[in-house]
Order: sequence, then C-alpha cells, then structure tokens
Amino acid sequence: MAYASPVRELSFILNHVADMGLLAKTECFSEATPDVVDAILTEAGRLCDEVIAPANRNGDLTPPVLENGLVRTSPGFAEAYATMAKGGWVGISARVEDGGMGLPFALSTAVNDMMSGAALAFQLAPLLSQGQIEALENHASDKIKALYIPRLVSGQWAGTMNLTEPQAGSDVGALSAKAVAKGDGTYSVTGQKIYISWGDHDMTENICHLVLARLPDAAPGTKGISLFLVPKFIPNADGSLGARNSVRVASLEHKMGLHGSPTATMDYEGATGWLVGEAHGGMAAMFTMMNNARVGVATQGIGVAEAALQEAVWHASDRRQGKASGSGAIIEHADVRRMLAGMKAEVFAARSIALHCAVAIDMSKATGDPDWEARAAFLTPIAKAFGTDTGFAVSNECMQVHGGSGYIEATGVAQLMRDVRVTAIYEGTNGIQAMDLVARKMNDGGEAAYRLLDDVESSAEAARDAFPKLAEAVWASAESLREATEWLNGEDLAGRFAVAVPYARAFARVLGGHFHLKAALADRAHGPHAALAAFYINRLLPEHLGLLEQVRQGDSGLFDVTVEDLAG
Amino acid sequence: MAYASPVRELSFILNHVADMGLLAKTECFSEATPDVVDAILTEAGRLCDEVIAPANRNGDLTPPVLENGLVRTSPGFAEAYATMAKGGWVGISARVEDGGMGLPFALSTAVNDMMSGAALAFQLAPLLSQGQIEALENHASDKIKALYIPRLVSGQWAGTMNLTEPQAGSDVGALSAKAVAKGDGTYSVTGQKIYISWGDHDMTENICHLVLARLPDAAPGTKGISLFLVPKFIPNADGSLGARNSVRVASLEHKMGLHGSPTATMDYEGATGWLVGEAHGGMAAMFTMMNNARVGVATQGIGVAEAALQEAVWHASDRRQGKASGSGAIIEHADVRRMLAGMKAEVFAARSIALHCAVAIDMSKATGDPDWEARAAFLTPIAKAFGTDTGFAVSNECMQVHGGSGYIEATGVAQLMRDVRVTAIYEGTNGIQAMDLVARKMNDGGEAAYRLLDDVESSAEAARDAFPKLAEAVWASAESLREATEWLNGEDLAGRFAVAVPYARAFARVLGGHFHLKAALADRAHGPHAALAAFYINRLLPEHLGLLEQVRQGDSGLFDVTVEDLAG
Repeated sequence: MAYASPVRELSFILNHVADMGLLAKTECFSEATPDVVDAILTEAGRLCDEVIAPANRNGDLTPPVLENGLVRTSPGFAEAYATMAKGGWVGISARVEDGGMGLPFALSTAVNDMMSGAALAFQLAPLLSQGQIEALENHASDKIKALYIPRLVSGQWAGTMNLTEPQAGSDVGALSAKAVAKGDGTYSVTGQKIYISWGDHDMTENICHLVLARLPDAAPGTKGISLFLVPKFIPNADGSLGARNSVRVASLEHKMGLHGSPTATMDYEGATGWLVGEAHGGMAAMFTMMNNARVGVATQGIGVAEAALQEAVWHASDRRQGKASGSGAIIEHADVRRMLAGMKAEVFAARSIALHCAVAIDMSKATGDPDWEARAAFLTPIAKAFGTDTGFAVSNECMQVHGGSGYIEATGVAQLMRDVRVTAIYEGTNGIQAMDLVARKMNDGGEAAYRLLDDVESSAEAARDAFPKLAEAVWASAESLREATEWLNGEDLAGRFAVAVPYARAFARVLGGHFHLKAALADRAHGPHAALAAFYINRLLPEHLGLLEQVRQGDSGLFDVTVEDLAG
Repeated sequence: MAYASPVRELSFILNHVADMGLLAKTECFSEATPDVVDAILTEAGRLCDEVIAPANRNGDLTPPVLENGLVRTSPGFAEAYATMAKGGWVGISARVEDGGMGLPFALSTAVNDMMSGAALAFQLAPLLSQGQIEALENHASDKIKALYIPRLVSGQWAGTMNLTEPQAGSDVGALSAKAVAKGDGTYSVTGQKIYISWGDHDMTENICHLVLARLPDAAPGTKGISLFLVPKFIPNADGSLGARNSVRVASLEHKMGLHGSPTATMDYEGATGWLVGEAHGGMAAMFTMMNNARVGVATQGIGVAEAALQEAVWHASDRRQGKASGSGAIIEHADVRRMLAGMKAEVFAARSIALHCAVAIDMSKATGDPDWEARAAFLTPIAKAFGTDTGFAVSNECMQVHGGSGYIEATGVAQLMRDVRVTAIYEGTNGIQAMDLVARKMNDGGEAAYRLLDDVESSAEAARDAFPKLAEAVWASAESLREATEWLNGEDLAGRFAVAVPYARAFARVLGGHFHLKAALADRAHGPHAALAAFYINRLLPEHLGLLEQVRQGDSGLFDVTVEDLAG
C-alpha cells in the first residue's frame, strides 16, 4: 500500500502532548503558531507521499553503484532530492539569514519522521546535511559559514559525518586519521574512514565531509581530536567549484538494508581541509552535531514504525482467514488486534518522547534555561534508543501480522525491518545511549530525572478525576522508577553500566504512559486516544516491573558468568 | 568464526535437565543410555561442524535457481546432503526395521539443533523428510510404507509438506486443491500450493510431496480435507523410478532469508497421488506430522541462537574498544557481558524446554501414559514459539554486540537474523501456537498446565536449601502463573485469544527458571550453570510480572481501539 504521512497525528502530538505550545510564546519561535505548524506539516506530508515514498523501493532493489570512483544513486533519488531541496526542507530549522525557515527543531523533527516513513535511505541524506549545518553554525569561522551554510541549506551541496575507522567505532578516541597544517590556513587530511553514509552521490554538485582527525601535537584519546571540513570539490570564494579534492570512495558496503543509502569507505590522501572549531576541540563540535542527529535517528525509527503500522493495518483489513466477525478480515481476530493496537501505542509513545525532546532542545535555545537544556540532554538518549528499538519491533510485528507473505521480499515488509535495523546501531549504539544516560546525563545527581518524574506525577494527579485507574498506574510506575533512580544514583559506574539498557527502557516505558495519559486527557471529546492510552497503560506499561527488577541487580553476579562459561 | 556444535551442553541438558534418563528405563528406548547418547551427539557434531556448516554461506550467497523446471541447489548442498544421509542422520528416530536408528525423538531433536546451527536452510530438508516418515508410519498403507519409508530414511528420496494456498494460510480449511479417484486406487490431484520448502531440488533422486486436497464429496472447512502422497517420479514396485508425475515448480520465491532453501510455488495438474490415512482425515494425519515438526522448528530457532551466541562471544573476545579490564576486549564491558550472558541464558532456557518436550513425546510413545501425552501436547506450542522467538532475539542481539560490522552482510551475522526470522511464521505462526495453547491445549481445564506447575514448584522446594533466593523466585513465579492460569481458564475463547501470546511467553519464562534451577542443582560441583541460573532468575524471569499483568486484561478494552482508530 502507499504510505500516507501522519499529518493529523503529528499535529495532535505537537500541540497537545509534546508542549509545542510553549515555543510560540518565545521570541525565538513566535512564528511557530499552530496554523503555521499545520501548514508546514501538510505541505511536507504531500512531498513525502507524492515525491519521496515512490522512490523507496528503488533504493532497495536498485542500490547505488560505484562507477569510476563516483556513486550513481538509485533511480528517482536525485529527482526526489532536487524537489525536496527546492521546497526548502533541508533548512526547516536553519537560520533565516542563511536561507532557512528558522522554524523549531520540533517541527523539522516531525517532518523528518514523515520523510523517514516515506523512504528511510533517502531521508538520511538531508539529515546529515542538517547536522552539518548545525555544527558549522556553532563552530565554524564566519567565512566558512557564509560560504557553506547557504549552499547546504538550499540543498545545492550535501554534508557527511566521518568518525569511524576500523579500530575506532564506539571508541572514537582510538581514531588515527591525521591532519597537518599547510601554512596557508588549510590542513592536509590523511586517513581512512569507514561506514560513511552518503559518502558520495550524484544528487548534489558538491559534498562536504566533516572529518575527525588528529593534529601532530595531539594528545591521545578524545582530547586530541580536531574537526575538519573537507569538500569533494574545493569551492572558490564565490561558491563556484574549483579543484577536485584528494578524497575518494574506496568501496561501498553490502549491508543488510538501507541499500538506497550508499555506505562508503573513504580514503583521504592529503586532502585539503579547514579546521572547524578549536584545535583539539573536535569532540565538542561533533557532539553538537550528534546530539540533534540522535533525535533525528530516533525519528528515523519512528517513521519506519509508522510505515510498518500502516502496512500492517492495511494488510489486516484486507486479508481474510478463519472466522472473523465484522468485516471478516483478520483485523477482527483478537490476537491481530492486539498486535496492531500494540504497534500503534508504541509508535505514539516513541513519537511523543522524541517530539518532547525536540521541544526541550528548542526551549533551551529559545530561553537559555539550564533546566530545559538538562531535560533535552536527558531525553536524547532515551528518545534515540526507544525510537529505534520501536522502529525495529514494530516493523518486526508488521511481518508477523503478514505471516508468510511478509517474509517474501516483494511485499516490502522485509525492507522496513532490514532498513531500520541499523538505526539501533549508528549515531551511537543503543547500549552507548543507555550508558550516556546513566553516566553523563545523571552526573547532576539525578536532578533532570527527578524533575521529569515530578512532571509525570503531577500530570497523573491532574488526570485522576477523568481516568482514575490509568492515572494511578502511571503515577505508581513513576514512583517505582524514582526509587530505582535513587538506587542507581548510589551505584558506581560499573553497577550503572550493567543495567543501563533496562533502565533506559524503563524510563521510556513510564514516559510513554505519561504521554498517553496526556493524550487521553486532551482528547476526551472524540476518544480514540483514551482507548489507546488504556491499552498502553494496562498492557505495555507493566513491562517496567520486570525492567526495574533487573535494574535493582546492578552488576551483582554479572561477571560470575565468566568468559569461559560463555565460550563453553 | 567457525560454528562448533554444543555437544557437551546438549549432553548435559538431556541427561541432567530434560529428564532423558527416564527414557533408558523404558523398553522402547532401553538402548538410549548416556554413553550412546554422547556417542551419537559427538558423531553428529562432527558432521555438522565439518560437512554442513561450511555450506551455510553458500546457501545465502548463491541461492538455488530454477532452470528448465528443475531446481539446482547451492554449491556444496548436494554433497553435504549425501554425506549426511549416508551417516543415517535422516532416520535417527525412524524404526530400525525401516533402516532407522530407532533412537528417541529427544536425540534427533538435539541433532537437529546442531544441524540448524550449522546451516538452517540445509537442515530444513531432512526435517521435512523426518516429518513425512512419521506421517507415513502412522497413517499410510503397508504397501506405501514399505515402498517409501526406507528410501526416505536412507535419504535416497526426500519429503515435502504442501498445505498453503494463496487464500489458505493459517486458515488451512480454506484450501481448494482437488483430488479425484481414478478408479485404480490412485487419485488425480490438481491445484496450486505456495511456500513449499524444498519443493524441488537436485539432492535426492525422488521427491515425495504430501499434499492436502479435497475429494469431490468433501465437506467444507477442515473436515473435508484429505492427505495425498504425490511423488515427483512415480516409483515402480521395486522402488525404481517410473514416469515423471504432473507436478512442476511454477516459480521460486525471493525471501528475506533462508535463501539456501528453495521455496516453491507448486502446480499439480492431474498429478497421480495416493491417499494417506482416511478420506477426509487429512487434518489428523497432517497434525501427526506437524506436532513433531513444531518441535523441529523450535529447534531450528535454538540452533541459530546457538550459532549467534558463539559468533557474538567470539567477536566480543576479539574486538577491542574503550578501556576494558582483563583481556581488554569488549567482553569485559558490563553492557556487553549483560548481552552475552542474556543470550546464553535464553538459549539454555529455550533448549531445555524443547528437549523436555521431546522427552515427553518419547515417554508418551514409550509408555502410552496420557499424562505424558498431555504434557507433550501442552509444551509443543510453548517450545515452538519461545524457541523461534529466542532464535530471532539472540541473533538480533548478536548484531547489536557487533555494532556496525554486524550490519555488513560479509560478517554473516545478518544472515542468521534473516534466516531464522521465518521460523516464527512457518509451521503455524507463533500467534497460532499461543492460541493452540490457550484453546485446544487447555481444553482439559488446565490440568496439563497445573501438573507442570506442580513439577516446577516441587523442584523449587527441593532447591531451597542450596539456592534459597533463586528457589523462592522460581516458586513465586510459578504460583503467579498458576493464578493467571486459573483466571484464564474462566475466560471465554475471545478473552483467551486476546492474551494468548503474553501467556505463552510467561509460561516459557517460568519454565526457563525451572530448568535453570535444575541445572544449577545438577552442576554444583563446577558451577557455571549456577551463575547463569542466577543471571536468568534475577534478571530475565521478572519479565513474567509484566506479561501476567497483561494476561489479566483478557480482551477488556481491546476492541475499543477500533479499526478506524488504527487506520487514522
């Protein structure tokens, strides 16, 4: 079936669940009124449905190829990219003076959700440019900003991120690419980078690589890493393209999915680059880019989950098997209904978390309030891990709803699963996200966590009259999570890391209950969200019980299962 | 890395956890002494490691092709099949008088576990023959038995199952293939069957299809279905091959995984067949075949989980990232250790459930005791659903342990996930398994369930001295499950179906705790199972809390989430 962007649902969540209303009250985002938001969503939805979604299967069936050192993309991708860029969709949140729309990150997050549901492999390209725009806005010299940002915003040029090397994956500090000052303000960058998404393609006239490398006097580890901008073609001052730079694609990977997105091994052989940010300050600059990129990746998972939900509902409404009441389709079977309602409830939960995180990022920017900043920082790893886990779980359930036909590639269901699987790995694996949560994001003694839980509990109190049973369940889950948080706060890092993943998931579970309850309250007139909230709170929220039991184990007995036992 | 069959682990579970010791005390299986079991496992393990595993990647990379109506299999498959068949491994559990080894089904289950870990797509071929041998033993005429069974046992011929048609998947009763008596004792079979695994190939000289079809006077639905044996070549009385039958492969499917196993659409156009069992008694005959095939499929999931566990442990022992103590490899990181211990604990639980189920099937055959029969029937859907879910979850976790490299097809990790995914769908989806559990298998008023829970609780009592905390946790989980079972027993089918999946999973969770505890008790001397049991019982068993909360919902409020809500 054809993907249909969930414009109405996104509008509902932004306006009634994720607190987007706060943004229009700030000077920074005073233009982001509900009607503007709806107009943007509607327009973006049309683009996704009519232009981007039709290219999705091509990406899987006719992957990009490397020819004479250049990557030729899948049929329809370059055309879709041109239309998307022309519509200004790369730069939704970029500054107006750079040609962007200057709209909240929350709104671009919603648009990225729709675009990911339409064609994940495609969406990764503008997502990378958006990250690069932000990194340059925050760290580049004025000259570089003026030269690069407007062209990235317009979609004339595209951006990539180059972190990983064979020996340096999650451990970025182990990277060994080198950069040497050439004396003219530029640097000579040499090294090999792997897993570079959209490392080369034919959709834009130039490709700008942000590359992490070490200066000669660099300290070992993450403190000795600097960030360089290395364009495929070296631009002249007027933006016209000059010489071809010494960067080339050595090979493309054959991946499980996301075939439409070329994943390159890039060789830098004395390529000309410009320092972005301070010497040895590369990690800080990269994190600016990565934090919002993590919300972007959360959204990739959620978008694919939405596509999988739609596909499953369509199939279950169409397929007839066994004796079913009503329409006679399998959607009337209790077990199928359970799967579909679960998928819908999970998409809602993951989406609300990601959008509220995006609102917190915007509020932090708009107000400078450290509480918002802390909330954004705390929610980012939760949003990333839960959004991408949900993307995979829901697309997996979509296959189960289909049965045998889902396993046949022609239905496109397998592509959803194969594509989205990588989102739990890239931009920091979900294990790394959880460790970030319990270490860096709880360095405040748990303050950001407790403040969130305060909100959950006071919202639950406010919902007691309308939904006494649901409100009590959410309140009690928050209280259990608070106790677990207090306990975890007393543990050392080893103990925290051992249970970081179940803790992060439990937090997402409870937040899901919170947002479902908010939706039920906001929606009492027509009610669909109340039924879904009841489904989530009664059936899915209880997962936190087992997760928090696990959290309370810390690392007790974990290493008693020895390497020899595991191998034996 | 190379797959290594878990001979020692299987021997331990069979002898100390799954009650295989009971079998050697029966007349039927008096030869299945521990030393015979170990010798068979060792020999089979060698075959799997040296002959079958090396063909596994070929299946994925060079899938079978349809050429001039015949299927040419992947490189190495036919040779491996010949060696496997020559070793007598198709007929481990077949009767000695038919050329089989006459050994317990529990032992062939253990061998199939190893073979599935070596090469899942390959293993499906002998598994189908085993199911056919059993169906013929129980339902065919003596003439057919004498002609077919020895040749299936020897691996000279192979078997397939033909149930599914485009409009008849889970709803087998909707099938429309027809059979008409020709007056000479044979039938003319006409119709199209889809998703036929190993529907054609070049590994054996003949292929024998068991086909469900309707006789002219058949009632609608499942009561009007008969079973026919339709060979590719019609054998002469001496077993030599006669005329080519009117059955042909219309096409092969392009699937997400299991590429090495050709999945055919089969056209029967007045093909000659022989009735197996009674006219209109096809479902009963098919269920004989399918029940054990379901344990076989459980074992497929478990075998792949084992392969994924080995691959993950190997990678984590080899890969260095970040600051890790000890070896410096990522296996020393708490989050990685948590993943690996979890994988190991899940494989153990799923394997113990499947092997105990197989022992129950053997005990039922050996003693005729209806309690054993009921236990086998009750455990089969649990073993199938949990074994295959574990196969997918563990191979998915294997990819997570690898990070980015796991997503690259060359590492083979993706193949494990892609291959095993179908096991949760075929031989009855896992939703169908769960519904079978709460409907047919609880028709006894829950007696089989309660008897199992009695065992769990009395084992836990016996373990209280040695492992007081673990024993209490297992006992309490069984008690909660008992209460949920009592509640479920009072619900109508609609209420049961709505929570069948979480109920089946909760039952598996509790059984996993039971078997882990048994292993810990059996293994007090050298201890690795005690550490693993503690991991499972403290960290994974608590999942039952949330699952049972879900069970207690029945279908309450489920259909309040309407079709319109789902589609909106």
